[in-house]
Amino acid sequence: MSYVFDFGHKHDRPPMEMKDLLGGKGANLAEMASVLGLPVPPGFTISTEACRDVMSSGWPASLEPEIVAGMSRLEETMGRRLGDAEDPLLVSVRSGAKFSMPGMMDTVLNLGLNDKSVKGLAAQTGDERFAYDSYRRFIQMFSRIVLGMPQDLLDAPFEKAKTAAGVESDSEAPSEALKELVADLKELVLQSTGKPFPQDPKEQLREAIDAVFGSWTSPRARAYRERERIDESLGTAVNVQAMVFGNRDDRSGTGVGFTRDPATGEKGAYGDFLLNAQGEDVVAGTRVTEPLSALSERFPDIYEELMSIFDRLEAHFRDMCDTEFTIEQGKLWMLQTRVGKRTGVAALRMAVEMVSEPGIALSKPEALLRVSGDHVEQVLHPRFVPGERTVLATGLGASPGAAVGRCYFSADRAAEVAGNGERVILVRSETSPEDVHGMLAAQGVLTSRGGLVSHAAVVARGWGKPAVVGAEAVNVHADSFNVGNFTVREGDVISIDGTSGEIVLGEVALTSSEPPPALETLLAWADEVRAGRLGVRANADTAADAANARRLGAEGIGLCRTEHMFFGDDRLPLVRRMILAASPDEQADALEELGEAQHQDFVGILEAMDGLPVTVRLLDPPLHEFLPDVELLAVKDAQTGLDDAERRVYEAARSWHEENPMLGIRGVRLAVVKPELYAMQVRALMKAVSDRLASGGRPQVEVMIPLVVTKEEMSLARSWVEGVLAEMGFGTGAVLAGEGGAKGADRREGGLLAPVTIGTMIETPRAALCAEAIAVDAEFFSFGTNDLTQMTFGFSRDDVEGRMMSRYLELGLLQRNPFETIDTDGVGELVRTAVERGRRTRPSMKLGVCGEHGGDPESIAFFAEAGVDYVSCSPYRVPVARLASAQAVLRQRA
Amino acid sequence: MSYVFDFGHKHDRPPMEMKDLLGGKGANLAEMASVLGLPVPPGFTISTEACRDVMSSGWPASLEPEIVAGMSRLEETMGRRLGDAEDPLLVSVRSGAKFSMPGMMDTVLNLGLNDKSVKGLAAQTGDERFAYDSYRRFIQMFSRIVLGMPQDLLDAPFEKAKTAAGVESDSEAPSEALKELVADLKELVLQSTGKPFPQDPKEQLREAIDAVFGSWTSPRARAYRERERIDESLGTAVNVQAMVFGNRDDRSGTGVGFTRDPATGEKGAYGDFLLNAQGEDVVAGTRVTEPLSALSERFPDIYEELMSIFDRLEAHFRDMCDTEFTIEQGKLWMLQTRVGKRTGVAALRMAVEMVSEPGIALSKPEALLRVSGDHVEQVLHPRFVPGERTVLATGLGASPGAAVGRCYFSADRAAEVAGNGERVILVRSETSPEDVHGMLAAQGVLTSRGGLVSHAAVVARGWGKPAVVGAEAVNVHADSFNVGNFTVREGDVISIDGTSGEIVLGEVALTSSEPPPALETLLAWADEVRAGRLGVRANADTAADAANARRLGAEGIGLCRTEHMFFGDDRLPLVRRMILAASPDEQADALEELGEAQHQDFVGILEAMDGLPVTVRLLDPPLHEFLPDVELLAVKDAQTGLDDAERRVYEAARSWHEENPMLGIRGVRLAVVKPELYAMQVRALMKAVSDRLASGGRPQVEVMIPLVVTKEEMSLARSWVEGVLAEMGFGTGAVLAGEGGAKGADRREGGLLAPVTIGTMIETPRAALCAEAIAVDAEFFSFGTNDLTQMTFGFSRDDVEGRMMSRYLELGLLQRNPFETIDTDGVGELVRTAVERGRRTRPSMKLGVCGEHGGDPESIAFFAEAGVDYVSCSPYRVPVARLASAQAVLRQRA
Repeated sequence: MSYVFDFGHKHDRPPMEMKDLLGGKGANLAEMASVLGLPVPPGFTISTEACRDVMSSGWPASLEPEIVAGMSRLEETMGRRLGDAEDPLLVSVRSGAKFSMPGMMDTVLNLGLNDKSVKGLAAQTGDERFAYDSYRRFIQMFSRIVLGMPQDLLDAPFEKAKTAAGVESDSEAPSEALKELVADLKELVLQSTGKPFPQDPKEQLREAIDAVFGSWTSPRARAYRERERIDESLGTAVNVQAMVFGNRDDRSGTGVGFTRDPATGEKGAYGDFLLNAQGEDVVAGTRVTEPLSALSERFPDIYEELMSIFDRLEAHFRDMCDTEFTIEQGKLWMLQTRVGKRTGVAALRMAVEMVSEPGIALSKPEALLRVSGDHVEQVLHPRFVPGERTVLATGLGASPGAAVGRCYFSADRAAEVAGNGERVILVRSETSPEDVHGMLAAQGVLTSRGGLVSHAAVVARGWGKPAVVGAEAVNVHADSFNVGNFTVREGDVISIDGTSGEIVLGEVALTSSEPPPALETLLAWADEVRAGRLGVRANADTAADAANARRLGAEGIGLCRTEHMFFGDDRLPLVRRMILAASPDEQADALEELGEAQHQDFVGILEAMDGLPVTVRLLDPPLHEFLPDVELLAVKDAQTGLDDAERRVYEAARSWHEENPMLGIRGVRLAVVKPELYAMQVRALMKAVSDRLASGGRPQVEVMIPLVVTKEEMSLARSWVEGVLAEMGFGTGAVLAGEGGAKGADRREGGLLAPVTIGTMIETPRAALCAEAIAVDAEFFSFGTNDLTQMTFGFSRDDVEGRMMSRYLELGLLQRNPFETIDTDGVGELVRTAVERGRRTRPSMKLGVCGEHGGDPESIAFFAEAGVDYVSCSPYRVPVARLASAQAVLRQRA
Repeated sequence: MSYVFDFGHKHDRPPMEMKDLLGGKGANLAEMASVLGLPVPPGFTISTEACRDVMSSGWPASLEPEIVAGMSRLEETMGRRLGDAEDPLLVSVRSGAKFSMPGMMDTVLNLGLNDKSVKGLAAQTGDERFAYDSYRRFIQMFSRIVLGMPQDLLDAPFEKAKTAAGVESDSEAPSEALKELVADLKELVLQSTGKPFPQDPKEQLREAIDAVFGSWTSPRARAYRERERIDESLGTAVNVQAMVFGNRDDRSGTGVGFTRDPATGEKGAYGDFLLNAQGEDVVAGTRVTEPLSALSERFPDIYEELMSIFDRLEAHFRDMCDTEFTIEQGKLWMLQTRVGKRTGVAALRMAVEMVSEPGIALSKPEALLRVSGDHVEQVLHPRFVPGERTVLATGLGASPGAAVGRCYFSADRAAEVAGNGERVILVRSETSPEDVHGMLAAQGVLTSRGGLVSHAAVVARGWGKPAVVGAEAVNVHADSFNVGNFTVREGDVISIDGTSGEIVLGEVALTSSEPPPALETLLAWADEVRAGRLGVRANADTAADAANARRLGAEGIGLCRTEHMFFGDDRLPLVRRMILAASPDEQADALEELGEAQHQDFVGILEAMDGLPVTVRLLDPPLHEFLPDVELLAVKDAQTGLDDAERRVYEAARSWHEENPMLGIRGVRLAVVKPELYAMQVRALMKAVSDRLASGGRPQVEVMIPLVVTKEEMSLARSWVEGVLAEMGFGTGAVLAGEGGAKGADRREGGLLAPVTIGTMIETPRAALCAEAIAVDAEFFSFGTNDLTQMTFGFSRDDVEGRMMSRYLELGLLQRNPFETIDTDGVGELVRTAVERGRRTRPSMKLGVCGEHGGDPESIAFFAEAGVDYVSCSPYRVPVARLASAQAVLRQRA
């Protein structure tokens, strides 16, 4: 097999499908040249296979002869010879890997110039300045990339030359100065490397190709691939292409063009053009570009040709394309094309519109695969309109979306001012359940402490309200905050971006928060695709959240955290009474009152989710979360003393204090220590079910036991739940493992359409490993992947995410933040194990995911592969999850 | 196959090997009767198979006829008929499972008595009182066990009868009173059950047998089996045996006898005898027994016969036997024998002596299997001499052994008083590094807070000093403690037992703490057996601990926790300077000084372990452990304010505070955040190695990286260590996975006999799952099963062990405390996985265990099975681990 392929080579397959061999750039150049017959400057691609062979055992014997042959063909086509003293051919040498690695790989332009050919170029173009400017650019680029000399060293002589010539910009440097500069640069190369700058164009070419191969293994390229999970063994192709010059004269120019508007998705060409310029000038932004439409006046024929090319590219690639082109003395050349990047709005609009455009006619599955979760996320939340801004500090982006408002430092003040119609950002060192009215009133929340699972983060995400948390540089005081010497006072305006974590002084313009109509269309297609394969539910704890989740497309609640019902102002005293109870009777009284309150909450949730399944997780957190902070009470004790009631609370808080609450007495463990608790909760739930049935509703409930680690815990907890079901006339028939729900019918006695099922979270490594035994008494599993990740890694999310995670990602000690995207090697193995073992006992077992990973597209793909039945995520992630689930189903089919 | 076997039945195998079928008691009775020809009252065994069949599907058709036939044979042998009105045969019906379940199963005596046969018995024995006393005993026993009537109800009429007769003890009740009592009891049965007391002896027999079968599934028997891990499906056998009466006259009696002293192991019969009495009377302790030797005067022939039987039993069972016997009118009957229970001292002595006794001639492996870890533990530490005592409260037995001393409540006072020669118990609510001089001076330590891994527990175990921790009932004040209303003041004497956790008021006599010479002999045999198969190392952090561990037989250090070197009075200020450092230079200075201190520590440790491997774990705990408690500082701030230095410490403590330190920034994570730390430690270690080499020593070191969860962490940490090795001239050749150490030779440059190896702890589920990748850069794994258990279960040992664990064990939610005995289902699967995957990458990988499980015999058996190379435990557990390891090797061979 050959190493070298001309752009016009007739391959067996379309070159655009051969990116493995030709790299992305080379494949698309060949597609344009050989398939579409577009005007592409001739050249050839040295394959990725050559790179792989060079990396493993140096240049193969046949490589150089093939390159020489390729170059001869190119010389023949162009009618010029590389380095010719009269009329030299110049080439570019560019990398081109299978996957784009922007800015990571090397390029050498103007190759073929030397002391003789520069004169030929000057003669041929009649432009000596152009020739010497090209030569000095080549020497600088080659010396940096191929010879490894530092950029600064190479820039210095040019700066000196410009000073000597008394000019400021590069383009003003006169021809003579450039000639002297070339001499200076060559001298510098000799001094630095001990060898003269290579004059032999063949040597230049070989060294440049070798350097481009070598750039594949540069540390920054490696780091980039590690981060982006690009296979290290792929290698890069190298494209050698005849140079064309947009900077030859006023009949020349260069531009970038998109076949549609990448910002809005609107049909029609979009781009920038610069007269008499090279590609770098467009990118550098030093000159003001003209819109592409200006071409139609300046070069009407070329404009027409370009528009026709755009149409052909779209029809051929069946997508919006991003192109680079150059006009050299009135002739159009296509330098590159690829499928273009786009905003969320544009992605949605194009995907939907292209389904009904006859020239493209995407299928719905194709359209679905064109849009990413990030695209959907973008259109669901307002964002900063791009532009200059002063970032005061950066925290953790804890809840996506951007917000602007005046700073207030207490929940009461924030609520009061917001009540007067003011937009408010609530700023706190951290939030607690006592701050929720202020959070609700605010546009966004900023805290200086806490991680992505802190109170502020969880509550804000639940409400889809922008939040930046754990901004350690921010020091929060009573009515101001400072970042270093800079102070922001109550009433000052700031803007926050809950995606990037940026905190900006003053008002930043925001994008619209109204999702485009295309979203609705696309998600409806997504729902068709995943129907019966992968469900999407929401994590919701209140009737309002449930209603919101349903509006966003949730097909049930995968996680209703009953503890959130305990934190209300009216509930907390009851919870404390229960904890402090001196006698069983006193405890029973408190539980009874709590149960009544929970009952009302459940009625609202079941009403909002009528006809859809609601998974209710019984109480999970450790009791001290319901008690005040021990340290605050200790300080108060020291300062003013505590009264009797306070002292009781203090003692209880101290007694329930835990060293590692994440691994402490919570979940089913707490229920074992306080056995009446779960019965109360189930009673409240079933009362709500009865109420809903009486009102003609169709409640569907699933009772979930948290933190089970042994089969015996599950059996015991099941017996509590069944006890209450029996007591309330909902029947007690346990669905035994393997019986596929046959006995479940008993439980319909209470008038339910579907039986109440009892299951557990799988959120510890042991539960996953022992899933086969636990499944005997569990009718469903829901993977609590947050805790499972914490325990599998031994990472406390609160502790490691702020101080450690960024360092770990930077050093490549982790490829991904495992709290955002599931760790398929470790945590994922446990998930797969539990799926397999759970279904071994109970083939029909229902499996869900209710950790934050349930809303992450990459994780959803993993879960689909692993065989779960549904994912559950926060309400505002539901649209993303609907799309990602459909994509996962489509990819599995493929 | 038959269900019923006479004791004299000729089986194909020795009956003593048929406990599966005959149960323990039945097998040994048959052995004595059919093989040894000893005088056993005739009878038969109904097999465990019958029980299993009855449990699964009721009485099989052939069972009753077989029992009737067995009874006919017994009647023929005895020449009397069951329930005969003239000369009745009486029988006992006793359970007898494969494994002894003391007190769990039921027995019925004197069966066959009814209103007619009681008269025959009276006539035959000429003792009406005896006959009616036997009858009333039978009615009471049968009614309770077979008819399920409550004990209290059945005792009441007898109490009434004695009051009516004006007597106090049972034996004084006259014949007439007993006759009336029999009538009253029968009436009571009729009233309670609605049926008369059964008069048909066949019906009595069938019901008694059925009740004994049924007692197998009683809740308490089930709970016992669950605790002792006895298979639920085994079932029990039932033994029906002719009654003999030691209470017939003064030529009768009963006794229990051991073939050697079960307390000391001394050769020669040992036991108790009671004239004219039944077995219950010996057990009840209501009459003072005579020593067995008294028999030699009273019944010289019988004594001689018994001694000869003892000799035969020992020779036959090849072990010390425990027997029950009865003399009826001058004739000796053997009622039971089994291998006898024994103290630790006795077990050791007998095991060793029986190897050289020609009649028994145990092999060394047999001797090793005769001794348990508990036996060894007993002789290593003093214990309470058995007897009456007032237990004030019970805490967690945190460090075995008993101690007596006067209470002191501060480390300074304890050290001062101990310096004057007083024995002291240090009592604190909890201990900290500032208390260690007091702990060192004390006989034992008592704390009211903290669990089995608290500071007090860990330090005390390391020193082999008795400690009771977490005694929640104990309220500790400045110079006293109270338990409820009872106060113990400074100087009062208490005794504590660090095995049982008992706290006793006053002085309790203690056993000797000098291990018997047999221990040394036995452990030497153990070492021979396990040589090259399973090593035993110690966890030791100081030169003194290392020397002690070596004295106790450790073959190296499996875990040297370098952080313990940081807690010294002279070190803590340095550690704090390092944490508080405002600049890299300041930090480097502090690290340098710390390094110098560690260097000296390492020299001492390497000297003590010269020639043996020392695994040095680099710093593991989170930094806040080196800082004072945040709450104390907050309170001080509120009370008196903080000075500048204190405020800096306070802020650092607050900043390094973690929500879940177990899952926080510690181990290699800390080293990533503070990268100079590990280099400093390795430099200090290698300086010590150089010093030892210069003094002619043979240091062997293994550098262990804690808390690794990714391959990349391991690579990075390895590069740090190798950097220091190279810098110090110890070579840098990495032993690559699979190369089996070939390149390791490079590292001998420094003059080492064995290369420095670099490995990691496997202490998170992810590390276990990803062992194959981590092994690429790790030359050894050491399982940190404490943390692995914490994370696999999600159990914080500090938090769950006190409040939750006992409840979980009681309810059967856990079969074992997984921190004491490894959880083979969950944690064990991870260990097996890591062993297999680690060796897949590196077949020669060295594997150890350094969690507390390394000293637990049952866990050691698991580790041997899993294929580890050594276990490491606290120095005082080394002898137990040596024995347990040898046993594990022997059992694997079998």
